[in-house]
Amino acid sequence: MNTPWVQTVVEHAAISVAAMGGVLAARGKRIDLFGVVVLALATSFGGGTVRDVLVGDLPVAWLRVPDFLINGTVTALLTFAIVRLWALPRRALLVADAFALALFTVIGTAKGHLLGLSAPVCVLLGVITGVAGGIVRDVLLGEVPLVFQPQIHLYATAALAGASVFMALKCAGIRGVAVTGAGIGVVLLLRLLGIRWKISLPIFEAGRN
Amino acid sequence: MNTPWVQTVVEHAAISVAAMGGVLAARGKRIDLFGVVVLALATSFGGGTVRDVLVGDLPVAWLRVPDFLINGTVTALLTFAIVRLWALPRRALLVADAFALALFTVIGTAKGHLLGLSAPVCVLLGVITGVAGGIVRDVLLGEVPLVFQPQIHLYATAALAGASVFMALKCAGIRGVAVTGAGIGVVLLLRLLGIRWKISLPIFEAGRN
Amino acid sequence: MNTPWVQTVVEHAAISVAAMGGVLAARGKRIDLFGVVVLALATSFGGGTVRDVLVGDLPVAWLRVPDFLINGTVTALLTFAIVRLWALPRRALLVADAFALALFTVIGTAKGHLLGLSAPVCVLLGVITGVAGGIVRDVLLGEVPLVFQPQIHLYATAALAGASVFMALKCAGIRGVAVTGAGIGVVLLLRLLGIRWKISLPIFEAGRN
Repeated sequence: MNTPWVQTVVEHAAISVAAMGGVLAARGKRIDLFGVVVLALATSFGGGTVRDVLVGDLPVAWLRVPDFLINGTVTALLTFAIVRLWALPRRALLVADAFALALFTVIGTAKGHLLGLSAPVCVLLGVITGVAGGIVRDVLLGEVPLVFQPQIHLYATAALAGASVFMALKCAGIRGVAVTGAGIGVVLLLRLLGIRWKISLPIFEAGRN
Repeated sequence: MNTPWVQTVVEHAAISVAAMGGVLAARGKRIDLFGVVVLALATSFGGGTVRDVLVGDLPVAWLRVPDFLINGTVTALLTFAIVRLWALPRRALLVADAFALALFTVIGTAKGHLLGLSAPVCVLLGVITGVAGGIVRDVLLGEVPLVFQPQIHLYATAALAGASVFMALKCAGIRGVAVTGAGIGVVLLLRLLGIRWKISLPIFEAGRN
Repeated sequence: MNTPWVQTVVEHAAISVAAMGGVLAARGKRIDLFGVVVLALATSFGGGTVRDVLVGDLPVAWLRVPDFLINGTVTALLTFAIVRLWALPRRALLVADAFALALFTVIGTAKGHLLGLSAPVCVLLGVITGVAGGIVRDVLLGEVPLVFQPQIHLYATAALAGASVFMALKCAGIRGVAVTGAGIGVVLLLRLLGIRWKISLPIFEAGRN
């Protein structure tokens, strides 16, 4: 997030994959076209909105920069059209969601760093920005968010690791697009490994009554 | 929303019908009197709160103007009393919700216009303000929001059309209460037509697997 | 909330019991360690975040004071460890939640008073701060929030009474830690009486169709 164009590219990429994830999550739920677009935009802008509100950077970004809204809306409509024509595997949702998680985590962490917040707070802001969009999407659909589902592996943990690597490299004085790439790569790698090999943390089962 | 008294009347009307909608939605859910009032207020102030937070106009309006709170609370208590005495048809909820959708959509759009935001952003802010109260109400009750339900017709679409008409008239330089009335009328007409004749947009079913 | 140390002690106590409540609510839900910590922090910081956003005191407190985050995280991890070793009764959740309700209600009311808001608005802000953390926790778990559940007695009502007593004493010119203690005591007493003897308000059942 060192140069403006990297920031812009990463934000647009995040909004696009989140919009795809929103449309894919609506599949089979009998939601009409407009509801699907609303859901896609809520997924795309949920994370950034929560982040901007928490740090008080208002009005939120997407009210100021119309490009983001146009991107989210067009991506949602295209995805809607594509999914009506071709049957995509269930895994497509998980992969789109993984990319959105990775990109938004690094965007949120970088924003905290830009605002001069302390390193642990930047990491937390990154995790919140990363998971919030998916939580908003799932709550609106009346489902338990992916981040809390038992069969979902290395979710918030992946975001935490990526945000930590990003901040560690920043604090070590490294600059350039490599830091952004490293942060995104760590989240994505862990999350995709989690999906592929079902790696998981201890589950909360023992001691119940 | 050109003269202060129009704005005040529309806001109070919106808060009243939203509070009625909140109480009606709680019916048959075994919620106590106080929970019902909390739910009614969440429905009444959800939309405006989301709007004020997004544009950074804080503290939110209802913390500054106690009249709105008094209106919402009294309306909720009266509706609670009436519904315990007379059985209202299920349609009463849909009609109260339609009025709240129409009024809040125009209030939100007008606020964006007042803040000097661009026309598409004003329309979006209007749709968000319109649908947010009902979403908050339904999420709190553990239900899929009306806006996403398959059997609900022309919901966000109605809000979009009304907000667009409002902004088009404003941009055309028309002033006075007629613009507000036109915006409200379009939302209400489309939504009530949707309820009556079950007009709907394409549903998201094809291509699933 | 007259002297800084009282404020700090009450806030840390509230965050601790809310984090315990968050972990206890996750029990038997097959959520992994990280999801449990996320849920505990959402419960701990939900109320304060809603309060700070509504009054526009941003960035929110926990982004500025890392102590609160450390407290919430450590409490969540300890509670997780303890609950895996010993089976706690179901009532433990209700009691932790009652303490969080009492403490956050008084914190929210005091913040409104500090900002110079009118007495009824301070009471409302207190109730919102008190119930918001638990609502966020339950919505994230896909459950109807405690505050709306029929078998939960004197919940928002207890918060309303405590916040009212706090403001009445403040307006009567009484100072010192006793006012804070009285507010907390009233909420806790009513809520625990509600749990113990199942005292309740009229339920919303009649007139349905």
